[in-house]
Amino acid sequence: MAAASADARTYARANSERFRHELHELLRIPSVSADPAHTADVQRAAEWLAAHMCGLNLQNVQVIPTAGHPVVYGEWLGAGADQPTVLVYGHYDVVPAEMGDGWDTSPFEPVEKDGKIYARGATDDKGQLFIHLKTLESYLQTGGHAPVNVKFLLEGEEEVASENLTSFIKAHLDLLRADVCVISDTSMRTIEEPAITYSLRGMVYIEVEVQGPSRDLHSGLWGGAVHNPALALVEILSRLHNPDHTIAVPGFYDDVVPLTPEERALIAQTELTEEQFRQMTGVPALWGDANYNIRERITARPTLEINGLWSGWTGPGPKTIIPARAGAKISARLVGNQDPDTIYRQLRQYIESLAPPTVAVQVTLLSADKPALIPYDLPEIQAAARAYAKAWGASPILTRSGGSIPVVADIHALMGIPVVMMGYGLDDDGLHAPNEHFSIEMFQRGIETAIVYLEELAALKAGG
Amino acid sequence: MAAASADARTYARANSERFRHELHELLRIPSVSADPAHTADVQRAAEWLAAHMCGLNLQNVQVIPTAGHPVVYGEWLGAGADQPTVLVYGHYDVVPAEMGDGWDTSPFEPVEKDGKIYARGATDDKGQLFIHLKTLESYLQTGGHAPVNVKFLLEGEEEVASENLTSFIKAHLDLLRADVCVISDTSMRTIEEPAITYSLRGMVYIEVEVQGPSRDLHSGLWGGAVHNPALALVEILSRLHNPDHTIAVPGFYDDVVPLTPEERALIAQTELTEEQFRQMTGVPALWGDANYNIRERITARPTLEINGLWSGWTGPGPKTIIPARAGAKISARLVGNQDPDTIYRQLRQYIESLAPPTVAVQVTLLSADKPALIPYDLPEIQAAARAYAKAWGASPILTRSGGSIPVVADIHALMGIPVVMMGYGLDDDGLHAPNEHFSIEMFQRGIETAIVYLEELAALKAGG
Repeated sequence: MAAASADARTYARANSERFRHELHELLRIPSVSADPAHTADVQRAAEWLAAHMCGLNLQNVQVIPTAGHPVVYGEWLGAGADQPTVLVYGHYDVVPAEMGDGWDTSPFEPVEKDGKIYARGATDDKGQLFIHLKTLESYLQTGGHAPVNVKFLLEGEEEVASENLTSFIKAHLDLLRADVCVISDTSMRTIEEPAITYSLRGMVYIEVEVQGPSRDLHSGLWGGAVHNPALALVEILSRLHNPDHTIAVPGFYDDVVPLTPEERALIAQTELTEEQFRQMTGVPALWGDANYNIRERITARPTLEINGLWSGWTGPGPKTIIPARAGAKISARLVGNQDPDTIYRQLRQYIESLAPPTVAVQVTLLSADKPALIPYDLPEIQAAARAYAKAWGASPILTRSGGSIPVVADIHALMGIPVVMMGYGLDDDGLHAPNEHFSIEMFQRGIETAIVYLEELAALKAGG
Repeated sequence: MAAASADARTYARANSERFRHELHELLRIPSVSADPAHTADVQRAAEWLAAHMCGLNLQNVQVIPTAGHPVVYGEWLGAGADQPTVLVYGHYDVVPAEMGDGWDTSPFEPVEKDGKIYARGATDDKGQLFIHLKTLESYLQTGGHAPVNVKFLLEGEEEVASENLTSFIKAHLDLLRADVCVISDTSMRTIEEPAITYSLRGMVYIEVEVQGPSRDLHSGLWGGAVHNPALALVEILSRLHNPDHTIAVPGFYDDVVPLTPEERALIAQTELTEEQFRQMTGVPALWGDANYNIRERITARPTLEINGLWSGWTGPGPKTIIPARAGAKISARLVGNQDPDTIYRQLRQYIESLAPPTVAVQVTLLSADKPALIPYDLPEIQAAARAYAKAWGASPILTRSGGSIPVVADIHALMGIPVVMMGYGLDDDGLHAPNEHFSIEMFQRGIETAIVYLEELAALKAGG
């Protein structure tokens, strides 16, 4: 079996350039799930993946409609019923990207430069999910079979909070049945420090709209007796945090599981210096809850962010209006055991309690997802650690990610299987930002590590 | 001479429909001065007016370039050197307008409906300046001459704070020399209550930009240790007002001339009820400084408004970023004797004092204009009152306007002549808002009142 993985790794190295050119094709499809104008592109990306899976000789390949964007499914069950089955989850949708946001090259025209692939979705998550397709191909094209069975669950709504995935999983438990789920949609600090992620933050995403006058008013003719809705909005939003940067929403922290000394020691292994943090983000100074170190703040503590803000005139020059409306997009990142429904209720009630009678305030829920916390001593996670040691050339650290992958909590709870997050991105890949990129070396090492991991999972079964 | 005005009025009534169709042509030109994309349209509007003046047999007609949009000049000096000269000021530029703002019909395709002309600029100020061109035409086409000399100064930058007009006036004092300036760019409460405006608010317009991280960041991966610039912005903006709705900028009220009991009595004549105010604006409740009544708040007290707000993602659905930047457009309306340069300095210093070290805050001045306060007992204003009584059919009230016409303070100070503001708009014409309109009856009565006013000015001279 070790010989099979060696052949597969050789094949993967020999075909590296072709693999990337195939990935470029997928990256060229602007599958922006948040924007209705891109609905057809999201569908096109799904069909591209299904066609690609058919080309790899996967069976039962399907583009399955949902109430939103489709799920792509495919399987290779040739290892037989006595071998374990791995469910690979990934997402082929991306967040919006426009040249005007600060891209140096067109976000949907991949460019390879300085050992990196630049494109929206390069690291999040098209490049990372593609690793698993190429892993299976490398086995099938060399020995004709893989050490374990593999199923693919590729969704098109991760960036819009996987709205339809929970019900999809509930409706397809038989189809998806597996022993372990593997997800590559996270990142490591440097290439020498591979990381297995055992915790993700959950999220509540809301929109707040303030309506003042029934139309934009001339600020000279009416100003002085009208509560400007933009002012009302900033007055509300300014009260979401306390002066010490903690969140002011009553009850917000009630269900947060305190960090144990053991976990704080684990987190301390990846602590950043303030200087490193400033260089990576470009901020002039650190901010946040002084009771926690940087890595704790960005992975293990809940947050409340303003993601967008709009009102009135934002074009060039002056326009003298009192805007009719003002709005904000706001999201909280949650940690175990915060319940997104409870947090949404607390947030909405707090905002409504701050709303003055001089304007009308409306709070809308856009998404709500649970945080995930996987025990980090599971054998499937230990097997992943061995795969890194053999194929990556470094032992992985166990880490919390501050990001959210809505499906993780669901798969863990609904399917009752471990979820192993083997992310092959780098922390500074610029995901969700202009000039998102994916390191070609990470892509290559990712495939080789994933190849070895399948072997380790088979050995685990044999040994267990 | 009374016969001349009677003939002119008859002519104006007979040609009413043609006058409006000519005005429609001017309204069709989207002369949006704030938007560089419309520079050629602003120029086109200037040239249309110059051509129209030539057609009316005005002399010395010129489109005079400035550092920004051009000034249109034309004169009729046929009344002779012993008759007074009236300088008519107006502006042919408009504020931005897009269907998406809530227009029922295209803003640059004038529609006449229910006795009103709907179009951007209908009342502010194309329709009102056109009154004076048609007034002169009505005299010249009937008796061949007007009772006084008339000069036109029509600018294309009023809506962007008349940036180049002060230097233009200084450079053309000889060309513009006149005995009185007449401006129609204000409004009255109802058609039965014509108003002469003797006071205007000044303005300081600034932009505040907050820079956080060097690029948009993934809110999951970085959130918790970065001061979100949108949050920093709302924290700053929320401190511009006190809980009692007064302005918190230190020194802001220092130079405000207190209202006299006599003026408060004058203002009380046009006071609005809270119910009227709510109906006119659509706000759910009144707001503002409880020490002043509604009309005082909106005309005689200074304000500080947020005119625009922007940050991060404002499209459909969620996008989980910490924005790199957040910004606001903010403007203060000033009353005598507030000095715009002093107020700008106070505002900038206060905002900078609120800026935390976790972000970079930049304050930029967009415009600064003095308030204007004209003594309301001047003979030229009394003559205007008589013109209203004769031609409008009602005696005017003397009123303060909350709006700003930057040129008024300049003409008053630089040319040393009275400025008489005879506005023919209605308070609810929706200027600077969607569905701006101008009453056809106001247009018609405006021309007749302006016709009589020229005669009253000649009589003033003869009598004086």
